[in-house]
Amino acid sequence: MATLKDVAKASGLTVGTVSRVLNNRGYISDKTREKVYQVMKELNYQPNETARALSKQKSNTIGVILPNIEHPYFAKVLSRLEREAAKQGYRIMLFVSRYKEEREEQCIEMCKSERVTGVVLCSGSFETEKFEDLDFPLITLERSMDEGTSGIECDNYQGGVLATELLIEKGCRKLMFIGGVSAGVDIHMPGDLREVAFRDICKNRNEENVVMVTDNRLFDSLEYYEYVRQALVDNPDVDGVFASSDVIGAYVLQACADLGIKVPEQLKIVGFDDVNIAQFTSPGLTTIHQPVEQMAELAVAAIAQIDEGKVVPTKTVFPVTLVERGTT
Amino acid sequence: MATLKDVAKASGLTVGTVSRVLNNRGYISDKTREKVYQVMKELNYQPNETARALSKQKSNTIGVILPNIEHPYFAKVLSRLEREAAKQGYRIMLFVSRYKEEREEQCIEMCKSERVTGVVLCSGSFETEKFEDLDFPLITLERSMDEGTSGIECDNYQGGVLATELLIEKGCRKLMFIGGVSAGVDIHMPGDLREVAFRDICKNRNEENVVMVTDNRLFDSLEYYEYVRQALVDNPDVDGVFASSDVIGAYVLQACADLGIKVPEQLKIVGFDDVNIAQFTSPGLTTIHQPVEQMAELAVAAIAQIDEGKVVPTKTVFPVTLVERGTT
Repeated sequence: MATLKDVAKASGLTVGTVSRVLNNRGYISDKTREKVYQVMKELNYQPNETARALSKQKSNTIGVILPNIEHPYFAKVLSRLEREAAKQGYRIMLFVSRYKEEREEQCIEMCKSERVTGVVLCSGSFETEKFEDLDFPLITLERSMDEGTSGIECDNYQGGVLATELLIEKGCRKLMFIGGVSAGVDIHMPGDLREVAFRDICKNRNEENVVMVTDNRLFDSLEYYEYVRQALVDNPDVDGVFASSDVIGAYVLQACADLGIKVPEQLKIVGFDDVNIAQFTSPGLTTIHQPVEQMAELAVAAIAQIDEGKVVPTKTVFPVTLVERGTT
Repeated sequence: MATLKDVAKASGLTVGTVSRVLNNRGYISDKTREKVYQVMKELNYQPNETARALSKQKSNTIGVILPNIEHPYFAKVLSRLEREAAKQGYRIMLFVSRYKEEREEQCIEMCKSERVTGVVLCSGSFETEKFEDLDFPLITLERSMDEGTSGIECDNYQGGVLATELLIEKGCRKLMFIGGVSAGVDIHMPGDLREVAFRDICKNRNEENVVMVTDNRLFDSLEYYEYVRQALVDNPDVDGVFASSDVIGAYVLQACADLGIKVPEQLKIVGFDDVNIAQFTSPGLTTIHQPVEQMAELAVAAIAQIDEGKVVPTKTVFPVTLVERGTT
């Protein structure tokens, strides 16, 4: 494998000059630059990113920790983070926590030993002490509010208001909320505000006209179809469902097909997130759009800014919008 | 930041002894080991993976290059690769090529400069010259057959046979194939064999009973609903569709809902891949199951084996199975 020395020797220049070309530092004539590039190509020289990382104690790498890649929401988040990171010259090192606290801590440890420039930590619901004393910025996305350097979230409360008001406006009389975590006792995550908003909008309604279905296993709901189906069987007079994610919304739609409930005629559904699955269902799922692209862009930008010594907001909340499709 | 020297000093041991504990090399008493771990914890010492990578010229990192994270097939592949890599002590560095040849070449260049242990390159359809003279193993997944160190694929031909024969067995008289790339001229990718098998099984049928719909844009079909819908409008007597992916199958199902075609009564559908989207549709999509988990496991194992100087197969083909759901 060719080294910097080999390139210097073959181009008749000093190692220092070649290094200046590589790092784009100081004055270098176009002729010299071209000469070096040509020799690098001839010798198939690869600048060693590992050595560079060591010398500057950083790796130009962003660690991304998320609970599950196959969930369409996280796939979308990861996709947008990668795109933005590539634009800004960062690599993505990927860690999947599988909703396990222990594994999440391991991921953070690995990020430390990899000397990452920063970490983007996506939702999950663990406690925060382990994330203190980090020597890199920790950007949280839709995650517990108090941890990390900078938290980025969408306006979950407003989304809950829009979804619930739409169902009422469309004439639904008995409303059901189906969600991943119960916000009955504490608010652990920004997403819990979807449920809080639903409760607030419904608080002047008779109790018998509101059904709450919450289960924290539903947060990763790829396997909870049966749970959703039973909720519909148990509450045959429900005519409007606010599902706290599009994945749950898709299950509601599927359960309706199985049970012979016509959507939107007999029952209306609003999801949350606006991921591709909302377009794959028949009819398409009305949902609350999270601006994931902008959220991911800001997450990467925040890491770059902190790396340059700049200050970033502690918390940023993005607006959501209602996207009406066939289920309402 | 604490160094190895600091740990040695604080624990009253030599740097060599601390290094042996860290690398789990040679005899170390339990007492010494515990002492070192305790001091490391007190000093918040992090072994520097970057320095380790430099000393051994490898980074314990596997580069994964895929065209699109949001496509459910690639999300599943990435998820399984990450799981297997974590088990074997590798990190995943993620690169997305966005179906662009130039970007794919950049990804390979970045993998070179990161000194990865190996690369897993997922499907795509570019030419191969750029992948010669790599100094790391290149494992291809469902990708052109001749490139890379080791190719892993599923038995696409057998899958095509199973899908087509099922439609015929269920009484379909006019069959349609909807696929991402045309294998009419050349076979570029293993997945093209799905179409070849369909043609072979149909070759004794009257031509007017077979419709081929192929478009290479459909390969990344998240946006081609309208294209699929038009194919159904143009061919109202088709009663059996073999879609070359579950994503395309989901679009066929959605188009049927829009056009008032009853599935499976009037039209039957078989997809390919068996990704989660096949379970989200109503009715669930009959499909050909690719053993992605085993394919990903083998990809990571192959990189580990080559790293240890072992020889791995040039090509490995995994069997597929038919999964019957509601669309047939």
